Amino acid sequence: MRFLLILFLITGLACHKTSAQNSARNYGITLGVLSPGKWNAITDVAGVAVGQVTLKEGDNIRTGVTAILPHTDNLFQEKVPAAVYVGNGFGKLAGSTQVQELGNLESPIVLTNTLSVAAGIEGILDHMLFLEGNENVGSLNAVVGETNDGYLNDIRGRHVKPANVVEAINKAKSGPVKEGNVGAGTGTVCFGFKGGIGTSSRKLPERLGGYTVGVLVQSNFGGVLQIGGIPVGKNLGQYSFKNQLESADGSCMMVLATDAPLDHRSLERMAKRAMMGLARTGGIASNGSGDYVLAFSTTREQLLTSGETAALANDEISPLFLAVIEATEEAIVNSLFAADDMKGKNGRLVKALPKDQVTAWFQEQQAP
Amino acid sequence: MRFLLILFLITGLACHKTSAQNSARNYGITLGVLSPGKWNAITDVAGVAVGQVTLKEGDNIRTGVTAILPHTDNLFQEKVPAAVYVGNGFGKLAGSTQVQELGNLESPIVLTNTLSVAAGIEGILDHMLFLEGNENVGSLNAVVGETNDGYLNDIRGRHVKPANVVEAINKAKSGPVKEGNVGAGTGTVCFGFKGGIGTSSRKLPERLGGYTVGVLVQSNFGGVLQIGGIPVGKNLGQYSFKNQLESADGSCMMVLATDAPLDHRSLERMAKRAMMGLARTGGIASNGSGDYVLAFSTTREQLLTSGETAALANDEISPLFLAVIEATEEAIVNSLFAADDMKGKNGRLVKALPKDQVTAWFQEQQAP
Amino acid sequence: MRFLLILFLITGLACHKTSAQNSARNYGITLGVLSPGKWNAITDVAGVAVGQVTLKEGDNIRTGVTAILPHTDNLFQEKVPAAVYVGNGFGKLAGSTQVQELGNLESPIVLTNTLSVAAGIEGILDHMLFLEGNENVGSLNAVVGETNDGYLNDIRGRHVKPANVVEAINKAKSGPVKEGNVGAGTGTVCFGFKGGIGTSSRKLPERLGGYTVGVLVQSNFGGVLQIGGIPVGKNLGQYSFKNQLESADGSCMMVLATDAPLDHRSLERMAKRAMMGLARTGGIASNGSGDYVLAFSTTREQLLTSGETAALANDEISPLFLAVIEATEEAIVNSLFAADDMKGKNGRLVKALPKDQVTAWFQEQQAP
Amino acid sequence: MRFLLILFLITGLACHKTSAQNSARNYGITLGVLSPGKWNAITDVAGVAVGQVTLKEGDNIRTGVTAILPHTDNLFQEKVPAAVYVGNGFGKLAGSTQVQELGNLESPIVLTNTLSVAAGIEGILDHMLFLEGNENVGSLNAVVGETNDGYLNDIRGRHVKPANVVEAINKAKSGPVKEGNVGAGTGTVCFGFKGGIGTSSRKLPERLGGYTVGVLVQSNFGGVLQIGGIPVGKNLGQYSFKNQLESADGSCMMVLATDAPLDHRSLERMAKRAMMGLARTGGIASNGSGDYVLAFSTTREQLLTSGETAALANDEISPLFLAVIEATEEAIVNSLFAADDMKGKNGRLVKALPKDQVTAWFQEQQAP
Repeated sequence: MRFLLILFLITGLACHKTSAQNSARNYGITLGVLSPGKWNAITDVAGVAVGQVTLKEGDNIRTGVTAILPHTDNLFQEKVPAAVYVGNGFGKLAGSTQVQELGNLESPIVLTNTLSVAAGIEGILDHMLFLEGNENVGSLNAVVGETNDGYLNDIRGRHVKPANVVEAINKAKSGPVKEGNVGAGTGTVCFGFKGGIGTSSRKLPERLGGYTVGVLVQSNFGGVLQIGGIPVGKNLGQYSFKNQLESADGSCMMVLATDAPLDHRSLERMAKRAMMGLARTGGIASNGSGDYVLAFSTTREQLLTSGETAALANDEISPLFLAVIEATEEAIVNSLFAADDMKGKNGRLVKALPKDQVTAWFQEQQAP
Repeated sequence: MRFLLILFLITGLACHKTSAQNSARNYGITLGVLSPGKWNAITDVAGVAVGQVTLKEGDNIRTGVTAILPHTDNLFQEKVPAAVYVGNGFGKLAGSTQVQELGNLESPIVLTNTLSVAAGIEGILDHMLFLEGNENVGSLNAVVGETNDGYLNDIRGRHVKPANVVEAINKAKSGPVKEGNVGAGTGTVCFGFKGGIGTSSRKLPERLGGYTVGVLVQSNFGGVLQIGGIPVGKNLGQYSFKNQLESADGSCMMVLATDAPLDHRSLERMAKRAMMGLARTGGIASNGSGDYVLAFSTTREQLLTSGETAALANDEISPLFLAVIEATEEAIVNSLFAADDMKGKNGRLVKALPKDQVTAWFQEQQAP
Repeated sequence: MRFLLILFLITGLACHKTSAQNSARNYGITLGVLSPGKWNAITDVAGVAVGQVTLKEGDNIRTGVTAILPHTDNLFQEKVPAAVYVGNGFGKLAGSTQVQELGNLESPIVLTNTLSVAAGIEGILDHMLFLEGNENVGSLNAVVGETNDGYLNDIRGRHVKPANVVEAINKAKSGPVKEGNVGAGTGTVCFGFKGGIGTSSRKLPERLGGYTVGVLVQSNFGGVLQIGGIPVGKNLGQYSFKNQLESADGSCMMVLATDAPLDHRSLERMAKRAMMGLARTGGIASNGSGDYVLAFSTTREQLLTSGETAALANDEISPLFLAVIEATEEAIVNSLFAADDMKGKNGRLVKALPKDQVTAWFQEQQAP
Repeated sequence: MRFLLILFLITGLACHKTSAQNSARNYGITLGVLSPGKWNAITDVAGVAVGQVTLKEGDNIRTGVTAILPHTDNLFQEKVPAAVYVGNGFGKLAGSTQVQELGNLESPIVLTNTLSVAAGIEGILDHMLFLEGNENVGSLNAVVGETNDGYLNDIRGRHVKPANVVEAINKAKSGPVKEGNVGAGTGTVCFGFKGGIGTSSRKLPERLGGYTVGVLVQSNFGGVLQIGGIPVGKNLGQYSFKNQLESADGSCMMVLATDAPLDHRSLERMAKRAMMGLARTGGIASNGSGDYVLAFSTTREQLLTSGETAALANDEISPLFLAVIEATEEAIVNSLFAADDMKGKNGRLVKALPKDQVTAWFQEQQAP
């Protein structure tokens, strides 16, 4: 039945082009034992929307904004359960303490660069305060994460403006998510290669609950890269501390979505597993790394506090943990596969991962 | 040298009038068993400087900025040990996770209103990024706390600008600290009375180490007020939940300084005791309250990491805990005694504490 | 009007016998603005049972066990939501991490002395492993708290045995709770006076939810005692650090029960407020103090995870916070009022609080 | 130079016999980019001693005790800085809150089975209370960790006695550490294979500080096993949730030692990285897993609080993080390589890892 097989391959390729363009699966690299959702993206969690604004101007501006919305209704009025886990707190995440105290999220999540967190907050306020129904809102917890793109970007110029943030929020939509040198990942560096935005998802089989978990990362960290078990960093002789006390610094913002009805405590447990996914790529959460996970459920808070939906019990959660770990690992790997070479500030060039070489190693390993 | 002595006394009185102007001790109300420092202010901790900008414009703008500096050198280059304790996290404190991870503070602490945290961050960056020696700084952890002054202030107008923040930082100086309706306390409300900025200090006797502890608060919370044991709220029939499900909401930002050489862990323990001082005033840390403590030592971090100064051992710290509790309680009480009636947004009026009545009750209680 | 007065006293005594025998209300001392439940005890929360075993043998054994059961069914099979808050962690509380991770409690809570925590665990296992339905249980999280009664008790003798623990659990019942020198409070010292077991409760009015909060404490700590605003420690010249670097050490175990349907996160918030109640008595949580709060709801976990009962929303919780603060403060004060002089190890004598003196001060303060 | 080569191999084998007998390096499997210490064991950290007692009796008793001592002097009098990180808190670790509050360790660390924690505490007290100099000690924080060996062991029989614990402590010595089916690892199961005790170390090159990090694990958890990048679980079709909702439960106790002068905060950061090492083996920290890390420095606390030794600054710590991750990963892998088939309770058999198969896969991957 050769014909059908060919058809299948073409379908596979088509899917590959419209969704996860350059990401690892398109190179034949599959990670984990669970299957991704339709777009292998955080948007596979129904309702989640992503919007990005890329600022690539002149020689020195390489930055941007990535906004993730748990849903596109009024988030302040329809909060969702959420939690934060701080893998390593050398970062400026805004809004974390209220998320932890109240167990919910009432704003879009905005990712940008380290010195643009204030612009992120202002942009969220510019958007949220004037939504219908929010006329009297005098307190809003804006959640803004960041990593430092100062190697390629003129970060001290603070080029991200609140209007860019509003634009990213307004552009947010479901469907495939652009990865690599885009949005908040425009100027980031990961394991010495060009990093960026990456995303992945896992859909549990029905017997394990049938829930979906999606992860989106802004990758900007170091360590000793391994991909699907291939010791890429070691093979290429490019890893932290190899020669002198090089910096392994950098950061990773991880946003985790699920449609499983989870309360704050369970989401915090989920968030901790994202750091385990990061660990599988060889990240070491070095001193200077701001490694944060923001996890949310799309089950609206009022469904839980009204008893309309019951939060998942402890003993049903383990398959979701595995899904988080796999999706985070793959989102990071995808950020590397999707990124291209980038030239930026002061003429600096950061090369993309040598994808064909990595792919070749992976295929050898898989060979019987 | 009688003349000089008299001059000193006059200076002392003048100081007393210009500094702790309306605060509780001027009404004869003394709290605790330990003695305050010279100014009964956070500035009694050597090196600490406070600067405030008050925005009181038209009928509706009642807000401002209060900046606290552990020292007036370059804080990024000369970090100090610090810790954050979240009493109740319904608030937007920026910078907390990095303080907790690295155990230090590298920026002035700025207090303002809830929707002006972004202005606070931008102002800190505007100030810090351009200090001599910071030309290459591409990451700076701005610490900005807030409470919600939206009852008296047009908070949605976001009237605080980065320039106001820079001004407050630049004005910061040692010496007496203005309390009450000033800076970030311009529009706050506490136990239904006019709250504001309050400060107090304790100087331990030499046999207990001789260290100084200073606290500055931005009081904006509710509960059942008691002052020096007097059940003020009960006596006046004004307290949370008295009639219907009234809001006891609001918040309290507490900044705690000490010259004791304490590392992060010990400062976190100190910070927890500030909430115990708040509790003594009858505060209840209601759901909507953002009650945060930022504690720092003025012993520079590099003295500790070089071994030049040793951090205090666990068994030397208890007297400092008592000092924190007393100074926090008194700083809150001072904020009430220093505040006057305030008219603000939509013609609303918040009355000051009936100070003479409270004083009379206190004197009766003290009578033999 | 002598006749009426006598009648009043008799009524007082009657009340006193059926409920909180020597506790503060019998001396006319009322604290807070909310009303206690029927017995002014943790057992006012329906279903909660308390059992105590007092070991007072010879000259040197002054210790015991106090067991608190959220309900008297099989706790392993019918877990309840729970949380732990560590006010100051110089203590040996067993079982805290699992309570925090899973958000539940699956064993009785046992209080005893510092060196008998192992006996507490063994006793709980001896009881729980052999309950009907637990035949295959191979993991059980025993929660055992302690304070150090070594001043009056031969603590190194480890006189508490697992059988004593089983006995306390088996004796547990609803109704009035014996306070003072009983159970785990037999040998404890508080503010330099004889401490012990104390309990109190608050019943919210229906308009505030109608829920009940009960607290039981094992008081064994120091500071600067104040009771209902009366500066007792100061008046009597007996407080921490008065003369030399005296120890304010000691500890306070606080157990908090409620029938409000609260999940782990909300119970942790409740637990934090118990430390605020402790603060109101003048406790300072000194370095050597093990101040822990174990909070639970009697709403069984499976009602919450099945959606049969919805957990309370954030904005309904503030009145419960006030209830926790008041009940904790009063439970500690009750422990002091209920305790009598105790002679113990090495002939040491610890005097009871001078109750009549304190009562007189309180009445003066209340006089118009 | 064949002769020399042979000599080298013989030396290698000899080394293999006296130290890490069956561990992964003897099979040619090397993990990471840093080098292990002399014994590739936690005892490579100077002063650290390990003692183990194995209880393998009849058909059903398969358990034991592993004791780790930061030094063999009086630990209560010479405390060491320490921290705990809870990866997943479904476990009964005793002593964690005091370690976190005071930042130190004052007892040996004892590992055993879940229902023998009380025996662990009693054993530590039996040992410590009667050491010279501890005659008046009335409070001692015993640290006891556990995992559940109830699949192979009659855990409800509580066969570990305090005397076994004392024996393990007394036997503790430096030098090679027995791995696999020994001590607290006698009955544990990991990824469906026989787990047990495993250990590994890393010695940083002098340019990175020259410090040593050692890890010892009691492996008893599940997930999707990978070793040195080889997807062992997937290749063998043996992993969590493969067929039905199988339990991935189980736990991992990790003990981490270093001679780097680190305070509590830095040790907590180190401890968090151990979970990243666990993640690299494919562990998922499932709901039922008790995954704890206890980290300590062998630099005595009084050296730090006297200023004699300065704690390492933040920016010197990253190489140590990498060392923790590698040593933890390898310790877990070593536990699998060192363990043999074990028959236990109810005739159950748990097979060892198919080491030759794994080794073959590893060699293929390494081939050019």
